[in-house]
Amino acid sequence: MNSDDDRRKRGLKTFQDVAGTPRTAIMESFLDVAPELGQWIIDFAYGEVLSRPQLDLRTRQLATVAALTAMGKAAPQLKSHIGGALNVGCKPIEVIEVILQMSVYAGFPVCINAINLAREVFKERGILIDRNGAT
Amino acid sequence: MNSDDDRRKRGLKTFQDVAGTPRTAIMESFLDVAPELGQWIIDFAYGEVLSRPQLDLRTRQLATVAALTAMGKAAPQLKSHIGGALNVGCKPIEVIEVILQMSVYAGFPVCINAINLAREVFKERGILIDRNGAT
Amino acid sequence: MNSDDDRRKRGLKTFQDVAGTPRTAIMESFLDVAPELGQWIIDFAYGEVLSRPQLDLRTRQLATVAALTAMGKAAPQLKSHIGGALNVGCKPIEVIEVILQMSVYAGFPVCINAINLAREVFKERGILIDRNGAT
Amino acid sequence: MNSDDDRRKRGLKTFQDVAGTPRTAIMESFLDVAPELGQWIIDFAYGEVLSRPQLDLRTRQLATVAALTAMGKAAPQLKSHIGGALNVGCKPIEVIEVILQMSVYAGFPVCINAINLAREVFKERGILIDRNGAT
Amino acid sequence: MNSDDDRRKRGLKTFQDVAGTPRTAIMESFLDVAPELGQWIIDFAYGEVLSRPQLDLRTRQLATVAALTAMGKAAPQLKSHIGGALNVGCKPIEVIEVILQMSVYAGFPVCINAINLAREVFKERGILIDRNGAT
Amino acid sequence: MNSDDDRRKRGLKTFQDVAGTPRTAIMESFLDVAPELGQWIIDFAYGEVLSRPQLDLRTRQLATVAALTAMGKAAPQLKSHIGGALNVGCKPIEVIEVILQMSVYAGFPVCINAINLAREVFKERGILIDRNGAT
Repeated sequence: MNSDDDRRKRGLKTFQDVAGTPRTAIMESFLDVAPELGQWIIDFAYGEVLSRPQLDLRTRQLATVAALTAMGKAAPQLKSHIGGALNVGCKPIEVIEVILQMSVYAGFPVCINAINLAREVFKERGILIDRNGAT
Repeated sequence: MNSDDDRRKRGLKTFQDVAGTPRTAIMESFLDVAPELGQWIIDFAYGEVLSRPQLDLRTRQLATVAALTAMGKAAPQLKSHIGGALNVGCKPIEVIEVILQMSVYAGFPVCINAINLAREVFKERGILIDRNGAT
Repeated sequence: MNSDDDRRKRGLKTFQDVAGTPRTAIMESFLDVAPELGQWIIDFAYGEVLSRPQLDLRTRQLATVAALTAMGKAAPQLKSHIGGALNVGCKPIEVIEVILQMSVYAGFPVCINAINLAREVFKERGILIDRNGAT
Repeated sequence: MNSDDDRRKRGLKTFQDVAGTPRTAIMESFLDVAPELGQWIIDFAYGEVLSRPQLDLRTRQLATVAALTAMGKAAPQLKSHIGGALNVGCKPIEVIEVILQMSVYAGFPVCINAINLAREVFKERGILIDRNGAT
Repeated sequence: MNSDDDRRKRGLKTFQDVAGTPRTAIMESFLDVAPELGQWIIDFAYGEVLSRPQLDLRTRQLATVAALTAMGKAAPQLKSHIGGALNVGCKPIEVIEVILQMSVYAGFPVCINAINLAREVFKERGILIDRNGAT
Repeated sequence: MNSDDDRRKRGLKTFQDVAGTPRTAIMESFLDVAPELGQWIIDFAYGEVLSRPQLDLRTRQLATVAALTAMGKAAPQLKSHIGGALNVGCKPIEVIEVILQMSVYAGFPVCINAINLAREVFKERGILIDRNGAT
């Protein structure tokens, strides 16, 4: 049974795990024009959906990075979720890999754009990918 | 019966109602590379389609904001049409509402991006949303 | 304050208004593989979003028809929502009009496919459009 | 100067060249629910845009097949335009080729679906592709 | 070093693991109109991309199901990859879960359609989901 | 028979013809985070697909510009391929024309955005379109 309070609590915790920011950041960011949006993101998206135990947060974040890469129309969210994937324990090379995989399902342009966003995230976090790129 | 002249006249008037700019602005903006595009927008889009009496301009603009939010791939036009919705008499809260509704049909990322564009439009016009966002 | 019970009640009522089917139909339809989905549709989509008083159901349904037409990737839902628009009081000609408008924002192919779905809905309900379509 | 009559005439002729059906077929097909749609397709799409002399109809049809393949959301129109490409003189192998190219820009799933539509068109017309597919 | 032969061998093996069909099925299916497509799918998609060791096939298939659900425009491939996910060891409940997650990122309509495809796959394989769907 | 070396050579040459940059530019640009991506673009996209003789590079580039315009979600790549179209001999007016054509299949917003990208490319190259835009 999900009571409203449980859902909110679970949503805030899951959001914090993924986003790595203070738990109420997203809710505050919409207070001026659309406070409901922040609440729905916490209560529904994080509290109801993403916090379900059927799938671990690492797999969830890789699935989200895959989907946002393929959709190719939400760069800021894709960048956040690349960071979120790292926050919940995905290795940088796994994030790169799931983006590369999308070249097969959604073509190279969206894949290139997502790799460029990953590079930005890695740079901001001082992450170096050690790949000897020889074929 | 739509003669060419009637269509142009009706298109220019409807465009001006929606865009709030001098009536020939859009036509002039493409004169250097693709003058036909400006003409088609006035003659076909505004003169033939959007000026039809079967639906009022307020409902039309909310439908356009909904569609461009959901499609998530035309930020400049979405921003213009958020402004256009206000120009034809939609209340800011109605524009917000139709964007929020798209979270159901197209997901949160496109909805968040559209809300951020609405915030920009409201800021440029000095509009304050008075919502007591407490749940 | 939305308690879980209120939300469910409001969701079921709004769903029934739009879908015109017994209120629990959608929840039962997913019981075998994904019962949560039916609950989310009622509790979040209908109970939290679509039942909000800031916009009337007629405008909401026209916005949804516009968005689903433009997205062009959810024919069964588009057909349902065309029916839903009629259920909440939209005139057939208004539904046609908002679909036609999408030719401007999303091109003719998605518009043609949506018109064909509208024709199916009208036929199933014995609706005749009285337009003197002479050119 | 495009008068209404010229545009209609030019549109009907170009439509007939591409579609290979009697010139008024598309206009009649929407008479029952949305007669304007048929008129816009002839007058705007074919009469104003596709009949322009700046690009030949063969290149135009290949561009349309490419775009509809990549968009992946208008199968009936894609099938029609594959036929249209053949009608204006594209070789079957060129149609196949432009579809295959989309694997690079939009991924394999939309490419596979378009190839399957091309196969249907070829079969209906008794066209055999002679390719010795050995690698 | 990927020689052509290695790539082909690896591609055929990975394809067989995922698709569960004889290894040359996909290549034969395009021999009549576009033999290259079958080769590219084996050599590039499976041999070069999906067989890379950086990510296990289970995570890859869940990412693909997520992306195809969200894109919402390749039902036959989505259905195949739901089956493929099961073939490489994903639990039915994990497949359901990653589809449900897409309601957050791409909206309910694409999510509903993907759940319906999953139901078809489960039915064909005699899989029963044991969920006590009570809230 | 495509050996690895032939493919790489052909890919580098075709890439150079289209992009007009030193042949290894794209491969180097991904060396830090995803070296495979650069290789796949040269070996698969350019070496395997785009260098095939069944369609000339001019038609291929126009098809790519059409598809990227219509998809509306890869502005940097669309801009590159507008330049690429000019590099392989397309006339500026042909590029404009194929973009304008997309207004019919994908709507005006994506068409407007592509025209604006074309204007940037033309400006960077000092290209003036000589069109007497009078209606």
